Amino acid sequence: MSTDLLIEGRHFRRDWSSGYDIGRKAAAQNLSDIVAMGADPTALVVGLGLPADVGADWVDALTDGFRDECDLVGATVAGGDIARSETVVLGVTALGDLGGRSPVTRSGARPGDVVAVAGRLGYAAAGLALLGAGVTGGSPDLVTLLEAHRRPRPPYPCGPRAALLGATAMLDVSDGLLQDLGHVADASGVAVELDAAALRVPQALSVAARDLGADPLEWVLTGGDDHALAATFPPEVGLPPEWTRIGVVAEGRGVRVDGQTWARGGWDHFRA
Amino acid sequence: MSTDLLIEGRHFRRDWSSGYDIGRKAAAQNLSDIVAMGADPTALVVGLGLPADVGADWVDALTDGFRDECDLVGATVAGGDIARSETVVLGVTALGDLGGRSPVTRSGARPGDVVAVAGRLGYAAAGLALLGAGVTGGSPDLVTLLEAHRRPRPPYPCGPRAALLGATAMLDVSDGLLQDLGHVADASGVAVELDAAALRVPQALSVAARDLGADPLEWVLTGGDDHALAATFPPEVGLPPEWTRIGVVAEGRGVRVDGQTWARGGWDHFRA
Repeated sequence: MSTDLLIEGRHFRRDWSSGYDIGRKAAAQNLSDIVAMGADPTALVVGLGLPADVGADWVDALTDGFRDECDLVGATVAGGDIARSETVVLGVTALGDLGGRSPVTRSGARPGDVVAVAGRLGYAAAGLALLGAGVTGGSPDLVTLLEAHRRPRPPYPCGPRAALLGATAMLDVSDGLLQDLGHVADASGVAVELDAAALRVPQALSVAARDLGADPLEWVLTGGDDHALAATFPPEVGLPPEWTRIGVVAEGRGVRVDGQTWARGGWDHFRA
Repeated sequence: MSTDLLIEGRHFRRDWSSGYDIGRKAAAQNLSDIVAMGADPTALVVGLGLPADVGADWVDALTDGFRDECDLVGATVAGGDIARSETVVLGVTALGDLGGRSPVTRSGARPGDVVAVAGRLGYAAAGLALLGAGVTGGSPDLVTLLEAHRRPRPPYPCGPRAALLGATAMLDVSDGLLQDLGHVADASGVAVELDAAALRVPQALSVAARDLGADPLEWVLTGGDDHALAATFPPEVGLPPEWTRIGVVAEGRGVRVDGQTWARGGWDHFRA
């Protein structure tokens, strides 16, 4: 079971995303929380706060977005509630079925485990940066990033499969890789040591970063909203191809990249 | 599973209710939806939207309210989400366990069934009317009504017990008795015939109605937010003492009281 509250102006903008895309994204965000526990999503309920200026077409599109995203994982929109509000508010709750397994939490990582990710990192953050700079189209690379902001593509099947493979900890990357792995490190009482060479910057991010004068690695390390999965596995587990090994779990605390602590804007040599 | 979205200014006011009472009421509203299906509530999750001016004390009190109301039914607050918002927003989702039974819905009422209610009717509406008139205290009767608005007392155990007794339809009275029984009549394709003599007006309501120049029967018939349970039972079922028989299910459609259709402000002789 997972719940999220999404507020217009903070989590989405109606001028940047269609009702359909907002529905897709709101559903994706909750469904990915469910698969990150190793469960198969089953149902979703939506509390919808609506200002008077929102028309039925927009609500229909939102509903279609919820339904289509749920269809990807075989879940259904089981019900909801509507209320009048000043801005659009979405209270989304998803349920999943663990099939009798225990949930994979953030607290099971052990020194010696492998750290791996499945799915995209930094795409949605780059898309948001493009929108913020007024870029609404362009090359296929830029369109991919804009679409990634509007409609994340979580690697749903990887979650339950990772659980079956013996993942010791898992979560979906919603706040940014470093911050979310920090949650795993804190909850498990371990350190996470990442390998910068394994954190490849995809071409689309390089292109957008050049256009905007930004650091693409910052998007990879700190960008949320792609809902990639990050997990730790015992070293003997053979990782399926969807997973990329990016580091190891060690004794200690905190998250480091090539032995250095990273802070927004660059490497924090004082904290390293 | 049941979900509700509560918005400050529409569903509650922070100057009329404490954080603790808002938590109690928000939990009660969802837990009563669960028992109205004949299930035992198990867990509740809360999405909380908070303006910057709300302090930690208020949030702690809200959380205590959620916990204490859940304790009444053996449920737990299983998690939540916090976001920044312009006004306080609560997205509450409750889960229940049917113990393998089918849920009691609104669509199973059959001609010949008995209509009955458990719990209070009109108290919260009278309390809201008192607050609206500036009454914040007074005689024990008035205090009871003010408290009923701030903190409903749904008859939780009556829901699962009614299911075991064979209730054919059930819901919690959140919009008002006539409107909610109208939902049962519509969903079941039947008429509901209520007996005015069975709809007793409690003394507290009479006192408040006299003070405010209001019609106490209007509160009983149309007041929501007490989260009484209304159900239909096969005629051979012996009703436990918590239930009051108020009418019967008949062929036809709509809800009538002593054969007349009721509209806000009085009896609607044109529609009768």
